[in-house]
Amino acid sequence: MKVIGLVGSNRKDGNTNTLVEKILEGAKTKGQETEKVFFADLKISPIGDCSACRKAGHCSIEDDFDGLMDKVLESDCVIFGTPLYWYGPSSQMKAFMDRWVCRMAFDDEGFRAKMKGKKCVLAVPHQDTRLSGAEHLFAIMEKTFEFMEMAYLGRIQTVAWRRWESGQDEVMLKHAFELGVWLADMEDFKKASGSVTFNFARVEAEGQS
Amino acid sequence: MKVIGLVGSNRKDGNTNTLVEKILEGAKTKGQETEKVFFADLKISPIGDCSACRKAGHCSIEDDFDGLMDKVLESDCVIFGTPLYWYGPSSQMKAFMDRWVCRMAFDDEGFRAKMKGKKCVLAVPHQDTRLSGAEHLFAIMEKTFEFMEMAYLGRIQTVAWRRWESGQDEVMLKHAFELGVWLADMEDFKKASGSVTFNFARVEAEGQS
Amino acid sequence: MKVIGLVGSNRKDGNTNTLVEKILEGAKTKGQETEKVFFADLKISPIGDCSACRKAGHCSIEDDFDGLMDKVLESDCVIFGTPLYWYGPSSQMKAFMDRWVCRMAFDDEGFRAKMKGKKCVLAVPHQDTRLSGAEHLFAIMEKTFEFMEMAYLGRIQTVAWRRWESGQDEVMLKHAFELGVWLADMEDFKKASGSVTFNFARVEAEGQS
Amino acid sequence: MKVIGLVGSNRKDGNTNTLVEKILEGAKTKGQETEKVFFADLKISPIGDCSACRKAGHCSIEDDFDGLMDKVLESDCVIFGTPLYWYGPSSQMKAFMDRWVCRMAFDDEGFRAKMKGKKCVLAVPHQDTRLSGAEHLFAIMEKTFEFMEMAYLGRIQTVAWRRWESGQDEVMLKHAFELGVWLADMEDFKKASGSVTFNFARVEAEGQS
Repeated sequence: MKVIGLVGSNRKDGNTNTLVEKILEGAKTKGQETEKVFFADLKISPIGDCSACRKAGHCSIEDDFDGLMDKVLESDCVIFGTPLYWYGPSSQMKAFMDRWVCRMAFDDEGFRAKMKGKKCVLAVPHQDTRLSGAEHLFAIMEKTFEFMEMAYLGRIQTVAWRRWESGQDEVMLKHAFELGVWLADMEDFKKASGSVTFNFARVEAEGQS
Repeated sequence: MKVIGLVGSNRKDGNTNTLVEKILEGAKTKGQETEKVFFADLKISPIGDCSACRKAGHCSIEDDFDGLMDKVLESDCVIFGTPLYWYGPSSQMKAFMDRWVCRMAFDDEGFRAKMKGKKCVLAVPHQDTRLSGAEHLFAIMEKTFEFMEMAYLGRIQTVAWRRWESGQDEVMLKHAFELGVWLADMEDFKKASGSVTFNFARVEAEGQS
Repeated sequence: MKVIGLVGSNRKDGNTNTLVEKILEGAKTKGQETEKVFFADLKISPIGDCSACRKAGHCSIEDDFDGLMDKVLESDCVIFGTPLYWYGPSSQMKAFMDRWVCRMAFDDEGFRAKMKGKKCVLAVPHQDTRLSGAEHLFAIMEKTFEFMEMAYLGRIQTVAWRRWESGQDEVMLKHAFELGVWLADMEDFKKASGSVTFNFARVEAEGQS
Repeated sequence: MKVIGLVGSNRKDGNTNTLVEKILEGAKTKGQETEKVFFADLKISPIGDCSACRKAGHCSIEDDFDGLMDKVLESDCVIFGTPLYWYGPSSQMKAFMDRWVCRMAFDDEGFRAKMKGKKCVLAVPHQDTRLSGAEHLFAIMEKTFEFMEMAYLGRIQTVAWRRWESGQDEVMLKHAFELGVWLADMEDFKKASGSVTFNFARVEAEGQS
C-alpha cells in the first residue's frame, strides 16, 4: 500500500508538516510505502473558466495539478494536511480540491470510481485555542470526502502557533503516530460504524515561561 | 472520583444506554464510583417564565431537575448520552441543559464555578448512516461545554437503529470502554492540546440477512 | 388560508411572542385566518419508548401533542417561534418536533404527505449579540424542514434580552410584519430559487441609558 | 461612497458576475461610485512562509494582492461574490482572505482599524439545490467578517448551474438589485439588531423544457 502525505501549507517546516510526517512514520511501521508532497513546492492554480477546456477536450491549465492528482490517484491512502486559516482550509488545499472538478468535467465516472473507497485522514494544526474553531473546516473537508465516497479514517487537530510547537507536543505526536498505524492497519475500520474522539486541553502551569 | 452517566433517551434498554453503560464499565476499571441515571425515570420540565421564580427568590418548578442537577454537581465526571433526533439532542437532554439557566439566574458565579473544569464526555447513537449527520448536535453540546469551561474529554458516536444494535457492535463497545478508561485516567488530557478521532464505516457483506 | 403561530417559549409576553404576533399581523392584511398557540399553556412530553405504543397500535403518551399536531396539520402555514437556548431551539420546541416521529411511526407516508409543501417561517430572538450565534439552531430547524419537504419561506432573528425589548425595536417589527405579508402572499416564492438576507446591527449611542 | 464588487470566480460571464453586477446597479441608483474586479484577471497567490517576509520587513510575494487589497481598503463597501465549490468559497476568494494575514503581520492594528466598520455583502450562486448546501461557506465568510468587525449588511444566494441561468431569474435579479440599494442606503441598518431572510424555491412546471 502507498500512503501520500499532502502538506497543504506554504511552510515546509511548520506544524502541518510535523503532523503529516508523524502520521507517515506510523504508517511505515506497517511496511507502507510513503511519500510526502509540499504544496509550497507546487503551483496549483484555481479552477478556470472551463469553456476553453471544453473546446480543447481536456483541462488546459498548465501547472502542477495533473502531476499531483495522478500521484494521489495512484496512492491507496491520502493524508490531507492543512492549517486552519479563517475557519477553513488553506487556499492551496482548497485549490487542489476545486480542481477535482476539472477531472470530473471530462471523466466524471472514471474519476469517482478511482476516488471511491480511497482511504484518507485529515491533519489540522491551528492557533485558535478552542477545538470548535475548526468545525467548518472539518465540515467542508468531511462532506467532500463523503461526496466522493472516500474511506475517511480519522483526523487529528492540534493547537499550535509557532512553527516548532507541534514538534514539542509529545502527546499529540504520539497520537499522530498512532493515527498512521491505524490507517495502515485499518484493523477495525470496516467492522463497525461510528467514531471515537479523544480530546486534550493543556493547562499551562502557573508561572510557566 | 465519581462518574455519573446520563441516559438522555426514553428507552432504558436502547443504544444510548448501551454506550453509557460501556463507558461506565471502563471507568470502573480505574476504581471510579459510578452511577447511571435514566431520563425515562425523571420529569425534567422546560425552563419557565422566570418572573414567578424571581419573585420567590428561587426556581419554582417542581420536578426532578434539582435532584438530578445536584447529583451532577457532586460528580467529577458526567457522561452525556443522547440519541440524535432531528439533527440535535433529545428534547429531554435539551430540557436538562436549558434548566441550567435556572441555577445561573440565582447563583451565576457559584454555578459556573462548580461546572468549570468538570470532566465530561458525549455519547451519541444515531440512525443516520453519515457520521456528519450529527455535526449540529455536536456543535450545540460542545459549545455549551466550552461556554461552561468544562473539561470535555471526548465523544463516541455509533450508527445504530434497532435498540439492540450497539450491543452487537463489538468494536464500538470496545472503544466506548476505552473512552471510559480514558476519562477515569485522563493520563494525557492536560499535557497536550488538540484531539484525535478514529472513524469506522461498516461495509455490509454481500448477501447478509 | 390559515396561519398558525407557535410561541415555543414559556414566556407568553416575551420576544418570541412579539415576533410571532407581528408576523401574524402581516399575514392578516392579506385576509388570512390566524391562530396563536403558547407552548407555555401546553404539556408536550418527550418522545417515549415506542414499544408500548407499537403494541397499542397508536401513540400512548397522553398530553397536548395530538391536539397541537392536528392544528398544525390543518394549517397552511406554520410560524415556528423559539428563543435560542444553548445554541439550539427551546426544549419545548424540540419536544414538539421529536414527537413528529410518533406520527411517522404509525403513518409515515400519510404524515409526510401532509407536511410536504406546508409553508413555514422561523422566528428567533436571542441574547447573543452575534448573529452567527444562532447558526446551529437555524441548521437544525432548516434541515428538519428540508427533510419534511416543507416550503420554508424565510426567517427573522432579533437580538433582544429583556422581555419587552423586541417590542421597542420598530425596524425589526416592521420586517416581522413584512415577513407575514410575504408568507400570506408568496408572490415570488415559486418563481425563483435562492434567498436574500438583510442584516441589522444596532450601534448603541454613546451615553445611552 | 465607493462600492467595489469582487467577482471571485474564474468565469467573467457567469452567475457570480450576474449577481455582483446587479447589486452594483442597485447601489448606483443612490449615486454610489462603483467598480468591479474580476479575480479571473488577477493573480492572487496563497499565503507564503512568512519568514522571508519578516526578514524583509514587508510581504515579499509579487502578485496582484497588494493592488486589490488597496482598492478594497479605499472602498466604503465590498461585495464578496464567490461561487460555492465543495461546500466553501472558491480557492481564489479564500486566497484573497488568507493574504489579509500578510497585512496583519506587519500592521495588525492599522489593518484592523481600516477593516472595522467597512460595509460588506455576500453573493453566492450554487448548483446545490438545497439552500442549506451553502451553510459552511456562509459560516466561514461571516465569521471572518465578524472577526474583522466589518458591517455585514446581508447576502444573496441563488441556485444556478449554467452560466446564463441567474441572468434569467428575474425575481432573484430584482432582489440582488434591492440588496444594492440597501447597502448604498443602509437606512435602517444601525437602528435595529437582527436579520430577515426571504427564501425562494422554484417549482419547475410540468412539461417545462
